[in-house]
Amino acid sequence: MGGGGGVAPLITLTTDFGLSDPFVGIMKGVIATRAPQVPVVDVSHGIPPQAIVVGAFVLQQAAPYFPRGTVHVAVVDPGVGSERRALCIETKAGYFIGPDNGVLALAAEAAGIRRIVELTAERFFLSPRSSTFHGRDVFAPVAAALASGTPPGDFGAERGELVRVPMPVPVTDATGVHGEVLYVDHFGNLISNVPAALFPRGPFVVSVAGVRIGPVSQTYAAVPPGALVALVDSFGLLEIAVRDGCAHDALACGAGAPVALIPS
Amino acid sequence: MGGGGGVAPLITLTTDFGLSDPFVGIMKGVIATRAPQVPVVDVSHGIPPQAIVVGAFVLQQAAPYFPRGTVHVAVVDPGVGSERRALCIETKAGYFIGPDNGVLALAAEAAGIRRIVELTAERFFLSPRSSTFHGRDVFAPVAAALASGTPPGDFGAERGELVRVPMPVPVTDATGVHGEVLYVDHFGNLISNVPAALFPRGPFVVSVAGVRIGPVSQTYAAVPPGALVALVDSFGLLEIAVRDGCAHDALACGAGAPVALIPS
Amino acid sequence: MGGGGGVAPLITLTTDFGLSDPFVGIMKGVIATRAPQVPVVDVSHGIPPQAIVVGAFVLQQAAPYFPRGTVHVAVVDPGVGSERRALCIETKAGYFIGPDNGVLALAAEAAGIRRIVELTAERFFLSPRSSTFHGRDVFAPVAAALASGTPPGDFGAERGELVRVPMPVPVTDATGVHGEVLYVDHFGNLISNVPAALFPRGPFVVSVAGVRIGPVSQTYAAVPPGALVALVDSFGLLEIAVRDGCAHDALACGAGAPVALIPS
Repeated sequence: MGGGGGVAPLITLTTDFGLSDPFVGIMKGVIATRAPQVPVVDVSHGIPPQAIVVGAFVLQQAAPYFPRGTVHVAVVDPGVGSERRALCIETKAGYFIGPDNGVLALAAEAAGIRRIVELTAERFFLSPRSSTFHGRDVFAPVAAALASGTPPGDFGAERGELVRVPMPVPVTDATGVHGEVLYVDHFGNLISNVPAALFPRGPFVVSVAGVRIGPVSQTYAAVPPGALVALVDSFGLLEIAVRDGCAHDALACGAGAPVALIPS
Repeated sequence: MGGGGGVAPLITLTTDFGLSDPFVGIMKGVIATRAPQVPVVDVSHGIPPQAIVVGAFVLQQAAPYFPRGTVHVAVVDPGVGSERRALCIETKAGYFIGPDNGVLALAAEAAGIRRIVELTAERFFLSPRSSTFHGRDVFAPVAAALASGTPPGDFGAERGELVRVPMPVPVTDATGVHGEVLYVDHFGNLISNVPAALFPRGPFVVSVAGVRIGPVSQTYAAVPPGALVALVDSFGLLEIAVRDGCAHDALACGAGAPVALIPS
Repeated sequence: MGGGGGVAPLITLTTDFGLSDPFVGIMKGVIATRAPQVPVVDVSHGIPPQAIVVGAFVLQQAAPYFPRGTVHVAVVDPGVGSERRALCIETKAGYFIGPDNGVLALAAEAAGIRRIVELTAERFFLSPRSSTFHGRDVFAPVAAALASGTPPGDFGAERGELVRVPMPVPVTDATGVHGEVLYVDHFGNLISNVPAALFPRGPFVVSVAGVRIGPVSQTYAAVPPGALVALVDSFGLLEIAVRDGCAHDALACGAGAPVALIPS
């Protein structure tokens, strides 16, 4: 990671662009033109429009599974074209490129930030540069240059800080542990902000939005089909699911719903 | 295919994960870390949640079009973390990796099974291994190892059998041929389980869910826009469509609807 | 581009196939079998079913961002299996392969057509060839052959013309400039057919479907969250959006809605 110079193993993309429009394909075209030897992998283009916190969470969960030196580009960018800064963050694990609105913050901090560079060197950008699609005009060409060996310091001056996102933190009090639903996945599973490390010692029961789920199970298949189940998911977080079903529909709740772990 | 040793041309992925969450990207990150030289191709991540039979059908249709030696990973896995086995199946055409719940069965049998290995050698898995995401922790790293030349026998012991899926079989009687709709595609075309080889000799008419469609046409364009049409689709199966429209909506029927071919 | 002979940098795909069915994966399997060294990039598989004009617009916008020599395959093909021709168009920038129904016309003309070849040499096709999936049986294998160095002239005879698509053209009269909405993107932004070069001289206000939007802004962030905004989008076209929202829902209008730029 020592300041660039090598070729990155790959570039990842995380956006709220969806897959119906040509926006993602255009970013890949720009990368293929400028860094033809670097593979591109999609993390997700299904971040809800303008949902910076969701994008930050998804990138944080995915980034640790990519090779050392990977260049991660995240574009959830409602402030595109305004005064918001554009960043390249060098970490101990890889690089993060995108707007300075928090979408990079969780993943970059988890990876160990080494330096933060503001993207200002226009010679790396597409020209003319639009004020609505910096994924194409700024972030893709900078990612291609970085992945091809350009040192991060060439893109602009170092900055001492970055914009963070407000993430709800679970609270432990005399009654138990109190968190909330962070994210609803494609299966309708409710992923909370309570990591297994914060679980109460001894037996406890989980409830979500006031509905008692029960103790934590090991697998979805530990309960009958159609039953509610609480378990530790693949992110290490408490999750509430319906076996072979959709907890989001069954409980009619989503992000922000209160989750409680009460000793029993 | 003789027991591995070479590098696979590519790895394919078929799942019910959707594309909004980071799950597919994470599997690709694991593969890129462990088998950076092997391209990954998506067959589909739009299998309906837990729909093992649909996943089995989609993989069976797609696998024959991939290069010899391809490693196909299929994860439709409602029993993840339970006692269901995990398999690597070596066939005459390539390899199939996934849970032993039937999702691999149709494709593997069509390709000609050589041996079935149960995945038990934990040194190939991610550690710690979750009980909810074996796509990341078991199947992706095993696929990467296999694609990099690890012989299948290294993953565990051979098994003599695998779980099959119940596929409805068309019946021929004195009145004609009777099948059912297997699959509804993105266009709303109704794909039946009646292959062209089972069509009645001589002229016949097709009906679906009691609605008369008519004789088999050669192309969608053989009927006027908006009209119902029966034809042999690209899988070699009888399909009922609406030209430039959606048969699923027009007939208000889907998988399981009866299909009849009656001599006329 | 001089008649082939080299290896193409990549192949792109634009279709109305969606991503749930195995159709796109199958095309990639055919390409990987016949041109294993050529990467494949998705432009979009979310073209609405049979929407030739949308496919033509999306391909036109995306193609200029890909490397010189790229082979673009577009399959929006309601006439598959009928008498419609299949084409390979050589341009100054790259190649375009697909049905001769207009889906290739905008991109190919913008790139500068050198020659048009009708695809008739059956030795390049899959055999047997279906009458419903030429993406798999004709266009993917021809793209693989072209990308591997086969000269376009090997695929068939030259043609002097191709089918065009009817694209609405903005009109300038004494009252101002009058166009229409061409395309609604994933964010619900309304993209018109009025390029910035046709804007009235001096100040003007934009209206869409009779609703006054105001003058043109530089960025989405120039207006408060939830407000309507008109701006020049990344395609160089006049766009009407709602900041952090959905203009398609807010204005209850889409493709075909009238757009007016009236001097103020």
